[in-house]
Amino acid sequence: MDQNKINEIKTLLLENNQESIKEFVSHFQPFDIAEMLVELDHEEQLVLISILPIELGAEILEYLEPELQYKVLHRIKDNFTSLLLNEMSSDTIVNLLLSIHPHQAKKLMEFLPEDYRKKIDTLMKYEPDTAGRLATVDYIAARINWTVDQTLQHIRKVGQEAEIVSYIYVVGSRGELVGVVSLKEIILAKSGTKLEEIIQGDPISVSVDMDQQDAAEILSKYDLVAIPVVAQDHRMIGILTVDDLIDVIHEEATEDFQKLGGSQPLDEPYFKNSIWNLYRKRIGWLLVLFIAEAYTGTVLRHYEDTLSKQIALSFFVPLLIGTGGNTGSQTVTTLVRALAVGEVQFKDMFKVFRKEVSTGVFLGISMGIVAIIRAFFLGVNIHISSVVAISALFIVIWASMVAAVLPMILHKLKIDPAVVSGPFITTLVDGTGLILYFSMAKLLLHI
Amino acid sequence: MDQNKINEIKTLLLENNQESIKEFVSHFQPFDIAEMLVELDHEEQLVLISILPIELGAEILEYLEPELQYKVLHRIKDNFTSLLLNEMSSDTIVNLLLSIHPHQAKKLMEFLPEDYRKKIDTLMKYEPDTAGRLATVDYIAARINWTVDQTLQHIRKVGQEAEIVSYIYVVGSRGELVGVVSLKEIILAKSGTKLEEIIQGDPISVSVDMDQQDAAEILSKYDLVAIPVVAQDHRMIGILTVDDLIDVIHEEATEDFQKLGGSQPLDEPYFKNSIWNLYRKRIGWLLVLFIAEAYTGTVLRHYEDTLSKQIALSFFVPLLIGTGGNTGSQTVTTLVRALAVGEVQFKDMFKVFRKEVSTGVFLGISMGIVAIIRAFFLGVNIHISSVVAISALFIVIWASMVAAVLPMILHKLKIDPAVVSGPFITTLVDGTGLILYFSMAKLLLHI
Repeated sequence: MDQNKINEIKTLLLENNQESIKEFVSHFQPFDIAEMLVELDHEEQLVLISILPIELGAEILEYLEPELQYKVLHRIKDNFTSLLLNEMSSDTIVNLLLSIHPHQAKKLMEFLPEDYRKKIDTLMKYEPDTAGRLATVDYIAARINWTVDQTLQHIRKVGQEAEIVSYIYVVGSRGELVGVVSLKEIILAKSGTKLEEIIQGDPISVSVDMDQQDAAEILSKYDLVAIPVVAQDHRMIGILTVDDLIDVIHEEATEDFQKLGGSQPLDEPYFKNSIWNLYRKRIGWLLVLFIAEAYTGTVLRHYEDTLSKQIALSFFVPLLIGTGGNTGSQTVTTLVRALAVGEVQFKDMFKVFRKEVSTGVFLGISMGIVAIIRAFFLGVNIHISSVVAISALFIVIWASMVAAVLPMILHKLKIDPAVVSGPFITTLVDGTGLILYFSMAKLLLHI
Repeated sequence: MDQNKINEIKTLLLENNQESIKEFVSHFQPFDIAEMLVELDHEEQLVLISILPIELGAEILEYLEPELQYKVLHRIKDNFTSLLLNEMSSDTIVNLLLSIHPHQAKKLMEFLPEDYRKKIDTLMKYEPDTAGRLATVDYIAARINWTVDQTLQHIRKVGQEAEIVSYIYVVGSRGELVGVVSLKEIILAKSGTKLEEIIQGDPISVSVDMDQQDAAEILSKYDLVAIPVVAQDHRMIGILTVDDLIDVIHEEATEDFQKLGGSQPLDEPYFKNSIWNLYRKRIGWLLVLFIAEAYTGTVLRHYEDTLSKQIALSFFVPLLIGTGGNTGSQTVTTLVRALAVGEVQFKDMFKVFRKEVSTGVFLGISMGIVAIIRAFFLGVNIHISSVVAISALFIVIWASMVAAVLPMILHKLKIDPAVVSGPFITTLVDGTGLILYFSMAKLLLHI
């Protein structure tokens, strides 16, 4: 945020000139006002929110962290707390209530009308990262026996509260989801048309306990802007909106990045993590990989004789295992991502294997040629050069094979393939690559 | 796709029973029908599309690859081609026309009405991956001097064609964007209300030449479902819809994954790439890294004397450089992603450095302790064990430092930080780590 703008609004707040504050703020989007608000002192924050129209104030609050949301709602005058809370979307409220102390949550809940409180209570009971937990109840439902005119009248009455009005969800007598109709179709329909004549029956919906990532996939596959969430008995509970699911898509990709980098995913944005937390998320895999890598020591020790006879062999150890690791890392990241977005499936295993091994053969030949050139310039004898070149060829092919097969098998076993990280495949190829290299050396150099 | 369903529809098509085909298809979403269609013979595809209502047929076509879209539009009866094309969204048409031969494109264009053809022509001229290229012209625009009633009348007239109707874009006399109003607000407004009274002026918009990734970021930041695209003179050109921008978000994340894995990003989904293409995208970085890694040979050669005196030192080479690479890879993937989603910025450089180095110190101490235990079990003498442990400590800290600083600097230089891939940082740490290790050995073992 621009410091000048923050100073400007601070001056206006000091002068307590309500009209010019409103005028100033009107040039910005709620998101931008939220970014400014974070930079203000807490007293200034309270004044600003209480000056703005309730609807705008609530929208700004939506963009804040739960901690600050609570601080504002707790300190502002009671009638504001109630008005703001009732304007905020229900998924934000659920997230807020679950982030603060239960006592504080209970107090805040008292500002909500009874029936709304019950709905919020239900949403709070769903597991984290499920469709139910992420759902908002601010949607418009219509009854199947209504006409378009009755529906429009209803929209006029409750539309102000709803988060999404472009789709109206049509429910039966028990509240079960029976269809969906777009606001456009309602407007285009002739007066007197019954909803049942124009609804799309059997609409796409997700169950309350579906993983939020799967829900995001469905939304993106079918190009929707919202998905209805239903309970086991098909009663409609709420909707998932596209903006929340975009956040899910971002989060899930971030987690996969961190996993592929060889650490456990962070639960919070980077700067929210303490040093201890970063340590905790990283040390586990580092240790596992260290222990796995320690195996290379055993391999080298096993070939101690060979090594001491031909110390030049050791010059190529980092180069060969590094190249194997790099090849494996290329394949594994490409495949893990392709599996995550559904471009590749387990049934394609054989196709993938053939493709990767063929690519590996050509990459291996190239690297073998370069290795022999490198050995020449390092002035090692032709026998060792050949060993290095042939090893490079086989290590690259071997790395491609392992990196092609492992993620596919894990995916099939319903283990997240992203655990086969770059460091993981590198470590795996290191030890096995060394065995390849020294076996080749013993074979070709007769030592 | 379920093979049974495909067989079922094949049988129905063979019987040419139009009513039962329509009934069968009515149980599926357009996306699912498209997935079935791909599995049919071409003749069957043509029959199926010509049986279905034009609107549904066009929606199914939207989900197909340009190649198949063209095959269908080219082979189906002319009046269908025209009807289908006019129902398809303009961004799909642009993508189709740019994917086929210019002669074929020209022929298809003739099925479009003159003014629409001109619009498509304009969109086709924008650079790939810009907002202009991705835009659709199927939005609803209203004039600033209209009332809500006039606007509703207009929506009733043209709404069927539009891709998004939940927002109406309000333009001035030259077609310049002056505001936006939601369909909800139009419906909630009293009859006779002028648009200028209820529009939100100065709406968020993007310029035609903005990178599609930046546009996706704006959409996700402001929680929009569509963004208007304007030319330099602020004339409105089209809109970007959330479903297209979700695809952009997926694509960009996929590219970053591939880059972080150490290959150039693939331009197409995995299976669309030939072996030659996979080779081409991977060999570049493999060679660069090989040449960089070859440096480790020079380092080892330089310490040949030390090595031959203490062959046991070589046992720990893969372990030490591997651990350095793993630490670097953890840090780099976390930071590159945090930079990509805006969680971390260049101005946070010092904060990041402190955080990563502190974490690195604790990780380094842990790894040092484990290294000494490992050396003990391998039966090497206490002096070498100490060298290994101290080297592990420093290599881990060093890797954290390099991995923290490099992506930040590249980001500042407007170079994509994702080029600092896992393999890149691993290679960089390998050579420098060896120097650390052997210097330490010479110093402490006096050899």
